[in-house]
Amino acid sequence: MAICSTHTTTSLHSPCTTVSNAGFRQKQVIFFTSNRRSGRRHGGARTFQVSCSVEKPVVIGLAADSGCGKSTFMRRLTSVFGGAAEPPKGGNPDSNTLISDTTTVICLDDYHSLDRTGRKEKGVTALDPRANNFDLMYEQVKAIKEGQTIEKPIYNHVTGLLDPPEVIKPPKIFVIEGLHPMFDERVRDLLDFSIYLDISDEVKFAWKIQRDMAERGHSLESIQASIEARKPDFDAFIDPQKQYADAVIEVLPTQLIPDDNEGKVLRVKLIMKEGVKHFNPVYLFDEGSSISWVPCGRKLTCSYPGIKFAYGPDTYFGHEVSVLEMDGQFDRLDELIYVESHLSNLSTKFYGEVTQQMLKHADFPGSNNGTGLFQTIVGLKIRDLYEQIVAERAGAPAETAKV
Amino acid sequence: MAICSTHTTTSLHSPCTTVSNAGFRQKQVIFFTSNRRSGRRHGGARTFQVSCSVEKPVVIGLAADSGCGKSTFMRRLTSVFGGAAEPPKGGNPDSNTLISDTTTVICLDDYHSLDRTGRKEKGVTALDPRANNFDLMYEQVKAIKEGQTIEKPIYNHVTGLLDPPEVIKPPKIFVIEGLHPMFDERVRDLLDFSIYLDISDEVKFAWKIQRDMAERGHSLESIQASIEARKPDFDAFIDPQKQYADAVIEVLPTQLIPDDNEGKVLRVKLIMKEGVKHFNPVYLFDEGSSISWVPCGRKLTCSYPGIKFAYGPDTYFGHEVSVLEMDGQFDRLDELIYVESHLSNLSTKFYGEVTQQMLKHADFPGSNNGTGLFQTIVGLKIRDLYEQIVAERAGAPAETAKV
Repeated sequence: MAICSTHTTTSLHSPCTTVSNAGFRQKQVIFFTSNRRSGRRHGGARTFQVSCSVEKPVVIGLAADSGCGKSTFMRRLTSVFGGAAEPPKGGNPDSNTLISDTTTVICLDDYHSLDRTGRKEKGVTALDPRANNFDLMYEQVKAIKEGQTIEKPIYNHVTGLLDPPEVIKPPKIFVIEGLHPMFDERVRDLLDFSIYLDISDEVKFAWKIQRDMAERGHSLESIQASIEARKPDFDAFIDPQKQYADAVIEVLPTQLIPDDNEGKVLRVKLIMKEGVKHFNPVYLFDEGSSISWVPCGRKLTCSYPGIKFAYGPDTYFGHEVSVLEMDGQFDRLDELIYVESHLSNLSTKFYGEVTQQMLKHADFPGSNNGTGLFQTIVGLKIRDLYEQIVAERAGAPAETAKV
Repeated sequence: MAICSTHTTTSLHSPCTTVSNAGFRQKQVIFFTSNRRSGRRHGGARTFQVSCSVEKPVVIGLAADSGCGKSTFMRRLTSVFGGAAEPPKGGNPDSNTLISDTTTVICLDDYHSLDRTGRKEKGVTALDPRANNFDLMYEQVKAIKEGQTIEKPIYNHVTGLLDPPEVIKPPKIFVIEGLHPMFDERVRDLLDFSIYLDISDEVKFAWKIQRDMAERGHSLESIQASIEARKPDFDAFIDPQKQYADAVIEVLPTQLIPDDNEGKVLRVKLIMKEGVKHFNPVYLFDEGSSISWVPCGRKLTCSYPGIKFAYGPDTYFGHEVSVLEMDGQFDRLDELIYVESHLSNLSTKFYGEVTQQMLKHADFPGSNNGTGLFQTIVGLKIRDLYEQIVAERAGAPAETAKV
């Protein structure tokens, strides 16, 4: 709970008011102005003199391409922290924000500096940094991290326009998800933990075919063309961020089915950076050695094509990492709990918590394979990281925030 | 301790006399007669009416080609049981027998029915069943198993002749090692546990080159010719026995060094039959699943080419088996103890016993690789099997032996 005295020096679009335990009203907002009609926007951040003891949010970055299961990931994440994530009540129905008891997830598309028309005029994609306002992103993430309320723009995915901003209060855990959470060095440095969802081209293609061809009737050629068109900017601006991630979830085609191109059975890697404060990588059987494991055998029987795990040390963009890999999918509960029982450093609070979380959201995409498993595990690791940071702060002498 | 009343019905070459707790003398001998000069031998077994409560030996069979490390194996085995194995005191200096406090190991070459000259005359190799007396082998192993003393022939490897027999008393553990322990069905049925040492042709060849070419100056051609000459009988009479073995130690070229043909670094498999009474196969990490493990990593560093383990279920000649494999070799003690700490069902009596045994005999061939490790493990499993059988007998009502 924040206990602050704040000196507001500007009028506010939608001031956030919080009541402290002492009962006096506070106002602390990082605001944002937009010129909606022009399709251009000038984000301006103003910080206020705050002299207080605040509970600062832990800030998490999640990077991935559009449509790569970020929202599923976020729902798994907030579920681990407790409580369901929902859009802000009574706000813009097209808000991209999700709020739960503990966590607020914002979508970085909201920092587009150009709307759809603006991008067309300039001939840039949403992946291009020139279509995004990193100064404002930095200012607002920094403000949230310091316990301040912000007025964050909204990019309306339905209309392609920039809508009036919404108020975001500092939560316990603040997640920024989108295309560029680790692109700008200043923003990157604010992150307590960062994740990159890395979907291989083959799987992206298989998924897009499934969705756009089977469900929407697009042609194979048009799907290929849209992937190709997107690729240069993706490779230039999105993909390089994975080198900064503390954890990467890499989604690849299965190796259990020869020449599989359906993209239904997946091989998923969880790449965990070593030496990250408050983050102790998960391991299989023997920490630091190289293991491959086919749990399906005498004790556990699995249907075709089975399940295969691998674990071991590696390097990733020059960093020491530990990699846990799962190929195949779970058919039954006993397979999932069996696998969980052989993983260590899961940061669960009780035996079977991973399995419980996976079952709770059995209807989410990826609940029977490595994407769901590793998203759940990353959720548990972030909860653990959050609790360690809070405990560390509680143990340390109270700080006086000076913004 | 045997407490028997025995009716001897024949004169004895070298009667075994044992004194019971009650102080009366017993005689129980299965004897053997030979005609040394002719180079031919007629083994005859005579059993005696014995009415007593005897401690019957546990009988182990070990099959392998000549010169494949059987004697090293036997020294490891008897070391695990406690005490050093030595030739019988005061007997034939060319005896093939090894005796320790608990264990007697006989060499089945002693059941050659033809000496070297006799084999030459008949044109048969020592591998040929026609050069071996299986009736006598059966009679004598059976007699030992029933707690009786035997007079066993001696095949003199130095002279190639059949020497006068030696007296063998029933030990706690009786090991028959040689070319044909599982060839004759009657003998096979007497075995409480059986092992086959399976050296692959590549490794045999590399070893023979090392010994016969480097050390004895033989030509490559003569070595190849001697291996080729031996192969048909080996394939016909020795190799098929491995299907009956409860445990097979298979020695193969390493896969860690591409195209290695030195035969110095070895890949060794321990193939353990499932469902064998009193024998619970060793496993790595997770019983019944398939695992590969490279222990050399962050915690344990190993020199080139490293160490790789594999474990998993398989079938072997139609039997369910568990296979533990080690490729590479140990350089240092910490590598060995680290590996031991991750193996389960080792039947050790204290933590580190495998490592202790390996270090005790560090000068034995194979002490730094899978041959030494798996021989030691098999020794521990046989000790455990012996103790289980003894415990089972102690729990059962005392039997009256009737031979």
